[in-house]
Amino acid sequence: MIRPPYLLFLGDVQDQLAAKTAHGLKDWRPERCLAQLRLPGCKADVGLPEMSVEEAARAGCRTMIVAVANSGGWLAEHWVPTIVAALEAGMDVASGLHQRLVDIPIVAETARRLGRQLFDVRHPTQRFKTATGIKRSGKRLLTVGTDCSCGKKYTALAIERELLGRGRKATFRGTGQTGIMIAGSGVAIDAVVADFIAGAAEWLSPDNDPDHWDVIEGQGSLFHPAFAGVTLGLIHGSQPDAIVLCHEPTRRHMRGLPHRPLPGLKECLEANLAAARLTNPAVRAVGVSIDTHLLEPSRRAAYLAEVEEELGLPAVDPLVTGVGRIVDALP
Amino acid sequence: MIRPPYLLFLGDVQDQLAAKTAHGLKDWRPERCLAQLRLPGCKADVGLPEMSVEEAARAGCRTMIVAVANSGGWLAEHWVPTIVAALEAGMDVASGLHQRLVDIPIVAETARRLGRQLFDVRHPTQRFKTATGIKRSGKRLLTVGTDCSCGKKYTALAIERELLGRGRKATFRGTGQTGIMIAGSGVAIDAVVADFIAGAAEWLSPDNDPDHWDVIEGQGSLFHPAFAGVTLGLIHGSQPDAIVLCHEPTRRHMRGLPHRPLPGLKECLEANLAAARLTNPAVRAVGVSIDTHLLEPSRRAAYLAEVEEELGLPAVDPLVTGVGRIVDALP
Repeated sequence: MIRPPYLLFLGDVQDQLAAKTAHGLKDWRPERCLAQLRLPGCKADVGLPEMSVEEAARAGCRTMIVAVANSGGWLAEHWVPTIVAALEAGMDVASGLHQRLVDIPIVAETARRLGRQLFDVRHPTQRFKTATGIKRSGKRLLTVGTDCSCGKKYTALAIERELLGRGRKATFRGTGQTGIMIAGSGVAIDAVVADFIAGAAEWLSPDNDPDHWDVIEGQGSLFHPAFAGVTLGLIHGSQPDAIVLCHEPTRRHMRGLPHRPLPGLKECLEANLAAARLTNPAVRAVGVSIDTHLLEPSRRAAYLAEVEEELGLPAVDPLVTGVGRIVDALP
Repeated sequence: MIRPPYLLFLGDVQDQLAAKTAHGLKDWRPERCLAQLRLPGCKADVGLPEMSVEEAARAGCRTMIVAVANSGGWLAEHWVPTIVAALEAGMDVASGLHQRLVDIPIVAETARRLGRQLFDVRHPTQRFKTATGIKRSGKRLLTVGTDCSCGKKYTALAIERELLGRGRKATFRGTGQTGIMIAGSGVAIDAVVADFIAGAAEWLSPDNDPDHWDVIEGQGSLFHPAFAGVTLGLIHGSQPDAIVLCHEPTRRHMRGLPHRPLPGLKECLEANLAAARLTNPAVRAVGVSIDTHLLEPSRRAAYLAEVEEELGLPAVDPLVTGVGRIVDALP
């Protein structure tokens, strides 16, 4: 578990997109984010008080989060002194980069010497078991999608917030680096050894109260030729009672594959339900979440109405309409 | 590439089942298997001439294969001196155990000092790319199954042999430890990081002659709640033109999961075809391979006829009827 409160380290990245994880943390867990630290030339800004490593430690920060992604997921060499300084000031350090903190000798040695924890959230260190398919107590909602990067994390977080706001029991479960940072724990499901995908997903949402909802961040798409295996294992291990289909309507092809069209919404939903029935025959679709921000604003309402008509399910844009109608539909 | 000819090391395992890999090599690649080496008390025997490490090296063996599986996949400590001796006698060493040869210091050091190769076939060392879904030249057949361990490797090998016997171009592609040993190379698809399952499968059967068949060993089952993600990624990356459904008709539940029934043959075949269409819309089922050895012999013919009637495809038992009728059906 990554211990809050956090100092968000933004390095000297050149745009806001590179600070996606920082923005996610600030948006969804503001109560855990105390300050930001930016190196000279940094063009990202999440609007938190600026603090040095020492100031943040004195202010009570327990973890510095490397909350940015360089191209390729590499850690810039000139960031290392700040990471070492954070360890020396008394903080743990967490990173979502491909390159591991534990593989940087000075960082690993400093952490060991001072008894600090390093979190490389993209690199699972747990040992998982293979899945059993045995039903667990509590309820689970999984977001699925027509493609990668079409709102699955955002939708899950919005549903968790709506459930909690109604006084219901809910826990967001992160399966990618930003989601894990936001949740404070989780598993980078696409980094698990293939044999253990579904087993890791079973581990992620253990037995819980009968009226508790685990709201699980989906990954990939059953229709993405590179990542569908990850998606299927996550579906089987999650044993969802409810699925929400996520979609970005202006996308013309699968992410990264210009030759490959997106599936139809109905086809995609049916395939996900069929897959989910293997481990939970009672699974139901409860809604559709559309990321409409690239649509003409005048087209939004009509598009959502069309989807609702086609699929017979509440169709929302979490940012525009909220997810209340999806939560209304939960048992 | 594991260099033949081979000395098969059987250790001192207590039954023939533990020597499954040795038997597979002897059955399917007899021309590569020169000798066996058994320690005192060994109860497995593949019927090859007995040789010491030194005799085998003098006879021309280039690789000693640890061709057995202890429970848990661990290498017995008292096998290590024989492995070191094989390296010193001039041979490479290959193993399909979970425990890596490269993790045994004396083995790793000896190999490095003498310039020998160590093959831990369960542990992929290649770096794979994520899959592209782009069509490759040549033809591909993939075996799929209602469950794990229901004849997918055996069927693929029998089809390769039948194709080659008819003077056609074919290559068996191994995806599990025994299959990789038999092929001499391959990838343990269930040991790949989840993001790269389909990418590894694309790597496994590269572009080839238009009239060449890659005959790919399937893994798991789309209906196994632990391993379906592996199966799906292998299907997508393999882009099969032809699939053969494998089944063991006396099995009452999915392997390792007493609470879980097997899918019906038709349901299973349809699901595999639907999955395969994502990367090859022209995929066809070309036959069913039934492992009838646990059926009453008097029931065999009737059962095969029933399956053939139900699915409208040739139904064979490779060991009893051969796979000629499936190969007849290949384009």
